[in-house]
Formats: sequence, structure tokens, C-alpha cells
Amino acid sequence: MTHTLGLVGLGKMGGNMARRLSRAGVNVVGYDIDAATLRALQAEGALTAVDSLAALVAALPAPRVVWTMLPSGEISQTALETLLPLLSAGDVLIDGANANYKDSQKRGTWLKSHGIGFVDCGVSGGVHGLANGYCLMFGGEPHDAARATPIMQALAAAPDRGWLHCGPVGAGHYTKMVHNGIEYGMMEAIAEGFALLDAKKDFNLPSAQIAELWKNGSVVRSWLLDLTADALKDPEKIKTIAPYVADSGEGRWTVDAAVEQGVATPVLALALMMRFASQGKDEYASKLLALMRQGFGGHAVKKAD
Amino acid sequence: MTHTLGLVGLGKMGGNMARRLSRAGVNVVGYDIDAATLRALQAEGALTAVDSLAALVAALPAPRVVWTMLPSGEISQTALETLLPLLSAGDVLIDGANANYKDSQKRGTWLKSHGIGFVDCGVSGGVHGLANGYCLMFGGEPHDAARATPIMQALAAAPDRGWLHCGPVGAGHYTKMVHNGIEYGMMEAIAEGFALLDAKKDFNLPSAQIAELWKNGSVVRSWLLDLTADALKDPEKIKTIAPYVADSGEGRWTVDAAVEQGVATPVLALALMMRFASQGKDEYASKLLALMRQGFGGHAVKKAD
Repeated sequence: MTHTLGLVGLGKMGGNMARRLSRAGVNVVGYDIDAATLRALQAEGALTAVDSLAALVAALPAPRVVWTMLPSGEISQTALETLLPLLSAGDVLIDGANANYKDSQKRGTWLKSHGIGFVDCGVSGGVHGLANGYCLMFGGEPHDAARATPIMQALAAAPDRGWLHCGPVGAGHYTKMVHNGIEYGMMEAIAEGFALLDAKKDFNLPSAQIAELWKNGSVVRSWLLDLTADALKDPEKIKTIAPYVADSGEGRWTVDAAVEQGVATPVLALALMMRFASQGKDEYASKLLALMRQGFGGHAVKKAD
Repeated sequence: MTHTLGLVGLGKMGGNMARRLSRAGVNVVGYDIDAATLRALQAEGALTAVDSLAALVAALPAPRVVWTMLPSGEISQTALETLLPLLSAGDVLIDGANANYKDSQKRGTWLKSHGIGFVDCGVSGGVHGLANGYCLMFGGEPHDAARATPIMQALAAAPDRGWLHCGPVGAGHYTKMVHNGIEYGMMEAIAEGFALLDAKKDFNLPSAQIAELWKNGSVVRSWLLDLTADALKDPEKIKTIAPYVADSGEGRWTVDAAVEQGVATPVLALALMMRFASQGKDEYASKLLALMRQGFGGHAVKKAD
């Protein structure tokens, strides 16, 4: 049986997903606001391009499955509001972008009131997912999840693994949020450890080789360590970039969830706070500390550059 | 060329190392204070048993290589003091147990003053090392490291990977210390994340299946996640154990090193502190906080059980 999917949003993730789906025999009808991206994907055979959301819906056999892969917030919401009157009862919308699970719960309720099924799906694997398969965690009512499953099987590493229906609407994005929260903590732990290797100047430790070494049977072996080993291969690279780490919402939502549920997740919270610090958001407090030290001990303060 | 190694300390780690070495064709002469363990290893062909350190040294061709795999501290030190007068200039001692790298530096200087080479080696891989090879990071002077290398190649995943001469004496145990510090942070991050999954009762998330799912292409895939998935397979297991996590020195040494070098490793430090908290070492502070709340707000305090 051939499955047909409408795919909206063909950026780095969405584009590769179209490629993986079409290779698995899924008939992908694609739309993106960027016409050049769309044409390129059609030219390589990854999808059938359409030039509007209306054309996308018209090209899909009912009951339809439409996957959106758009930036969270207003862009996603506008697309859903445009799609809603074009869809019919029994259609299913899958949101595969990162979103706050509470927004997903609200969307699920809103779409259900119009007879449209909603599946919230967290997707991990980044740019490597095309070759190796994505890791997919999704929430939704059982019949909507069942409709989404063949698509998940095509995107995942194999039909029988790499995807999981985690629970009701919201459970997919909640699980992905926790996944990213763990990611923040693991990344910070690895980075702090390598900082300690680098700081021990009298040992002149070969950090890049140590990262490679630890891939072999060590307790800390992990995909994030593999990435660290890659990053350290060129020793000039770390010298040329600023010590600034962005955060993109998932880490904050994780700490929000911990606070709401009263669960102690100090390392996940601290990993987030260290990102804020890297963004200079510790500077006011640092200045105030310097002034306090000056106040009680007469200690010198440094002038701003 | 057949290599001969004296191996002292045949506990869980040392015993499996004897097995892996003998399978690789290394002639292992073994000694342990526990005669039954020793006989069993000889019976399965993992080593030639001797009944004293003197007999061990006598059975080895000079220049000798002796590997100790003993608990750090007094037991290790006593064994080295017994071995020292039995050894000859040019022999090499390898300490493969966890030890504070500063103790290893002192041992290296002390042994060198007697003409004995010293190699400090961190070994990761635990009970899985027998089948898959150990991950070995060692420090020592180049000629001592070269003497140790064939043994490292036999213990590692393959002759060309899984072992690294990291630097001077001390560099092996320093690198292993940082490895374990990272391990503390990664473990805490994973554990806190799963606590957040468990706490979201209205989603009834299948934690064990989520751990299995994340093995497939997710960013957090790691050996520690694999162990977590194994631990969650039996849902009764987590209900029956106490929330107590021991610490065995490496985490403390990591934080000591961070303080000494003035490097910010807040997540590694906090992961250690959370182990102390799990051991009840947060209780005095918690009681004092409860009393302060009572003091300023009249809030009720809980009676001790």
C-alpha cells in the first residue's frame, strides 16, 4: 500500500525527511514558502511540489495526513489556521517541530473540536537522520497515532524500532522536551570534563585523542562524545569561536516542567543556567558581586572594556 | 613474542583482565590474597597461580612487568612496599586501579628513586570489558609506557585502539578521574530526565520503552542510556531499592582538581553533591531550613520518624 503525506516546511530537517520518506516509497506532496528549496527537492525526486497550502490539501487523498515541520510559535499557528478550513473531518495533522507540550495539548483540543486529529511528534537525530533514521516520539489518540504509524516507520531506523507512541496528545512533545533537557545536562558534563583536561597544562593532555579513546569501551561513550571528538579534531576551531551557547526553548520548558511538578532536577536546571551565563546573562550579578567585595573588603574592581 | 605479566589483585576487574590477557596469548602469573579465586582462575586456564608476591616476582622473567589491581589507599601501598625490595632496576609496575593522580605522581617519584618504572593506568569498561575490551588511559615515562603497551593492546578492544599513553606519570589517573567526573554528570542528567518522565502521571509515559526508543538515532544515545534501559526493564526493581547512591572518590577528586585549577565545573560538582544528598548528607541543612521557615513564618515542621 502506498502512503501519501503532505509535508509543510522543508528546511534542513523537513527537506531530509522528504528525502527519507520518498526513498521508503511514501508519496510526498511538499510545500514550503521558499520556492527555490521546493523546486530543488522536486528536481531530485524527493516530493511533488505544490505552490500553496490549498494546493497541498487538494493533492492529498482523503482522509489526509499532513505533517508540519515549521518553527514553533506564530509561524506554526498561522499555518494551522490556514490549513484548518481546507481540511475535512477525519484528516490528521502531525506537528513534528519542537513545541511546548502545553501548546500541543491546546492545539489537539482545538483541532479535535473541528473533527481533525492531532499528533505531536518529537524528532531527534538532526542532520544525521536522513542516513540513519530519525528517533520519533509521538502523542495522540490511538486512531490518529495508528494513521501516523506508517509514516513513522518510514522515517525511523527500521519499521520496528526508532518510533514510539508515548501517550495522549502532548506526550510526544513532553518526551522530546525531557530528551533535550537530558541532552543539555550530558553536553555540559562532557564540556566541563574536557575543560578540566585542557586546564591541566603541566600534563599537556591530548584532548582530541582522549575523546577518540573514550569511544572504545568507556562508560562515557555516547553520540555526544563522538561529536566532541569530531569538534576537537581541528585544534584551531575552538580558538576561533566565541564561548556563547544559544538555547532554543526545550531546556527552559524542561525546567518549567520540573518546577510545576516539584521534581528536583538540579543538573538539568544548572546546565540551562550555564547557557544563560555563556550568553552574558550572568554579568549583572558578577558586577554586583565585584562591588560587594569592594564594599566590604576594599578589593579592586576591573573596569569594563 | 610471548609477553609475561604479573597480575596482583584478581577481584571482579582483575580476574576478567587475566581472562582477556590469557585469551590474547599473554602469559599471566597471578596472585591474590583469596586462594579460592586464584585456584578457580588457574583451573579455567586464565593464569598460573602463585602463593605470594615473592613467588610472583620469582616467576617473572626480568625485566619484569607487574600490574596491580588493588583497592586504592593502604592495600595498594602495602603491596607496593612488599614488592619493591623483590623487584630489580628496570622492572615496571603498572597500577590499574583507580587512584588519586597526586598519589600516583608521588609513587612514580618514589619508585623511580629505586630504579623501578611506574605506569598509572585508568581502566574503564567494567564487567563488560572482558568481552568488548577495556578502555585504557595511562601515564608514564616513554620507555615505561612502551613496555606497558603490548599489555594494553591485549586488554583493549583492538591492538590499534582503546588505549592511549596520555602523558607523564599521573596523566593516566588524571584522565580517568575526569572520565569518571563526566560519568557522574551524564548519569545525573539521565536520571533527572527519567524522573521528569515518571512524574508526569497524567501522561502515564512508558519510561522503559522510551529508554529503548532513544537508543535509535537520538542525540542522547549512549552506553549509560543502554544501562538505564536495562535497569527499567523490570518495573519492580526501582520500587524495591533505596534512593542511595554511593561515591567512590573519583567524583570528589574531580571537584578538587576543578577547585585547584580554578575551572568552572558546576554540573560535575553538583552531580557529586546530589550523591551526598542521596546519602542523607543534606539532612542537617534541610532541618535547619525547616526551622528557619518556622522562625520567620511560623510554618509547621515535620517530626523525625
